[in-house]
Amino acid sequence: MGLVVQKYGGSSVADAEGIKRVAKRIVEAKKNGHQVVVVVSAMGDTTDELIDLAEQVSPMPSGREFDMLLTAGERISMALLAMAIKNLGHSAQSFTGSQAGVITDSVHNKARIIDVTPGRIRTALDEGNIAIVAGFQGVSQDKKDITTLGRGGSDTTAVALAAALDAEVCEIYTDVDGVFTADPRVVKKARKIDWIAFEDMLELAASGSKVLLHRCVEYARRYNIPIHVRSSFSGHEGTWVSSEPLKTQQQGDKPVEQAIISGVAHDTSEAKVTVVGVPDKPGEAAAIFRTISDAEINIDMIVQNVSAASTGLTDISFTLPKAEGRKAIDALEKNRSGIGFDSLRYDDQIGKISLVGAGMKTNPGVTADFFKALADAGVNIELISTSEIRISVVTRADDVNEAVRAVHTAFGLDSDSDEAVVYGGTGR
Amino acid sequence: MGLVVQKYGGSSVADAEGIKRVAKRIVEAKKNGHQVVVVVSAMGDTTDELIDLAEQVSPMPSGREFDMLLTAGERISMALLAMAIKNLGHSAQSFTGSQAGVITDSVHNKARIIDVTPGRIRTALDEGNIAIVAGFQGVSQDKKDITTLGRGGSDTTAVALAAALDAEVCEIYTDVDGVFTADPRVVKKARKIDWIAFEDMLELAASGSKVLLHRCVEYARRYNIPIHVRSSFSGHEGTWVSSEPLKTQQQGDKPVEQAIISGVAHDTSEAKVTVVGVPDKPGEAAAIFRTISDAEINIDMIVQNVSAASTGLTDISFTLPKAEGRKAIDALEKNRSGIGFDSLRYDDQIGKISLVGAGMKTNPGVTADFFKALADAGVNIELISTSEIRISVVTRADDVNEAVRAVHTAFGLDSDSDEAVVYGGTGR
Repeated sequence: MGLVVQKYGGSSVADAEGIKRVAKRIVEAKKNGHQVVVVVSAMGDTTDELIDLAEQVSPMPSGREFDMLLTAGERISMALLAMAIKNLGHSAQSFTGSQAGVITDSVHNKARIIDVTPGRIRTALDEGNIAIVAGFQGVSQDKKDITTLGRGGSDTTAVALAAALDAEVCEIYTDVDGVFTADPRVVKKARKIDWIAFEDMLELAASGSKVLLHRCVEYARRYNIPIHVRSSFSGHEGTWVSSEPLKTQQQGDKPVEQAIISGVAHDTSEAKVTVVGVPDKPGEAAAIFRTISDAEINIDMIVQNVSAASTGLTDISFTLPKAEGRKAIDALEKNRSGIGFDSLRYDDQIGKISLVGAGMKTNPGVTADFFKALADAGVNIELISTSEIRISVVTRADDVNEAVRAVHTAFGLDSDSDEAVVYGGTGR
Repeated sequence: MGLVVQKYGGSSVADAEGIKRVAKRIVEAKKNGHQVVVVVSAMGDTTDELIDLAEQVSPMPSGREFDMLLTAGERISMALLAMAIKNLGHSAQSFTGSQAGVITDSVHNKARIIDVTPGRIRTALDEGNIAIVAGFQGVSQDKKDITTLGRGGSDTTAVALAAALDAEVCEIYTDVDGVFTADPRVVKKARKIDWIAFEDMLELAASGSKVLLHRCVEYARRYNIPIHVRSSFSGHEGTWVSSEPLKTQQQGDKPVEQAIISGVAHDTSEAKVTVVGVPDKPGEAAAIFRTISDAEINIDMIVQNVSAASTGLTDISFTLPKAEGRKAIDALEKNRSGIGFDSLRYDDQIGKISLVGAGMKTNPGVTADFFKALADAGVNIELISTSEIRISVVTRADDVNEAVRAVHTAFGLDSDSDEAVVYGGTGR
């Protein structure tokens, strides 16, 4: 039996009862003969409470001190978890990110992992301990300051440790049973996915699926660490995310060339900015997106409309997180003369629906059926963007739920469908 | 202007308002031209809340994990304090005990400081920052584990840093105005002491005065660091604890040889154990106190009664913290045959009153007046113990307050007295 990294989120360790339940599950893995490394988030609302305190003392807390503050949260949960495990008769030791060797850059509040040197973890395991590691945190390489990894940081800590320790699997425990073909709150008939490839999971994550964040999947893919997303409240198998299908699925007879639809993701957290009346000449798009990038704003979709020949002007639209909207508008206005455009339009009543699946681009039927499903549901499409394994459209926010259900049904993903619609290999 | 170390207790930083008030005071010291190092405790009840959580997950939490848990408390307060200072336009950086170079032994929950290597603090100061350091915590020399210093740990951190940084003064901020001639809750006319020698403060602390703990004073005395105990809620001068009297007092004409009474301390946290019927032969006391010491129990007073010639047996009494009573009785019972005694008596309804002052032993009038004051107040004395600069008696717990007031008045310490009673130099 090999080494397993387990990660438990804040909802799994929200109170003393939760911590004791999680401790039992960890001890089970240990009893099954595994070496166990556990990555844990802060308890329930701890982080929000700390942020609230920070806001009370300072409207603009410094990044370094904010990180120092927030990392107290995992320190509490990991120490309690280690105590709870010991109380079950097994030895456990907790480690801060710094002690676990999680080395990061110096960008406070959203540091990136540079290296993982888990010497102390390895020693603790070799001495028969269960190692408990604080998620979400590290120590900066140059200044030796405490850093936090930002959103999804604990998942990334878990995958990074799994990679550094050459773990068999990284288990991400959460409050849902795994990754679904669509958000079960929107699509009642959504199905749990047993296995999904890294690439498809990346697209789902980028398209609004909240279960795993893009960053963590990317890390796992780079180091080829299988992720098992599952519930800490049940014993069910969850969703495996890996490069190779599960053995049980490999036995199937589906041709490799066919398109396999993984799921439908949606996202209503974005807004759309349209730069109107841009001269249709080389360098214009570059000027716009350099301005956006200098303001450290991450954008998602970009669409440039066909130029109207009569005016020589075109429109460029892009989507971005609503929270960044104000900043983007300000940055563009400030650089108006440098870029050269007529006006800006801002729209935060949009939604995005994405269909994700392997082999999509080589099976044009997928795109056609996707648009037909939306049309049948009366959903108007405002922007379109595609990749090798994903097709996304922007619609009115009000249409999103209806659109997701329509597409989910059209592609045979509903749990009462006999079989998912398959493209390509079937000669369709 | 030199370097000042300031320490703020949990009651001073109990909430966001408290943190902001303390931040202003720190900035004042900086504006006055000092280099400022601040040692801070956990906010208000944080530590108690964490202990409560620990008890919910494990009846006997491991020392290592308990320390990991508790140190989250200072991490929160120090980061918030640094933010609040920055919000006032001054630069501040917070440091954990480990980052501040507080090196300890490996005795979790009550580690002792072995060394202080404040390189990062010195650098932060040289760069113009105010340095905020987590009190109560350190890192073990051998295992690099997080440790806590136990009771009074934050005061000790402050004094240790002051020594390592060669500070001008260590200011201990608390919720009272300083050290008083007696507990103001018991003696309404208690006076604030302007200056007190290390030795007298050590005796007061050992005798029940809660303002400064023995350990911190001992450390300050060894490195000759003046301590200034004062309120974080007022701007008043507090009590100076140092080797030399303040300059203003040195101008006085009181002879050096006279007895100067510092104050009256009391303590009702102890219990008395009497070992009855011990053979009056060499090695008996050693056997008893080896047993107690092996059980890691700290004791206070020891009194051996005169042996009854007829039986060859004697009684030995000692006092110890009530919390240790059960453990002491168990240890002695277990070793009954090895020690040889008739029975054990346990009494937790006792109190201790101590008079502390320099030159006491060479001025027998002090002792006589002390006993007379107690007798006049109708207080019966059960045990007596003396040192160079202290005389303590054990009485019934119910008599303690009355006894303290009587002694305080008899020695002219009341705030409306014209002058304190002086021995020796006055020819009395």
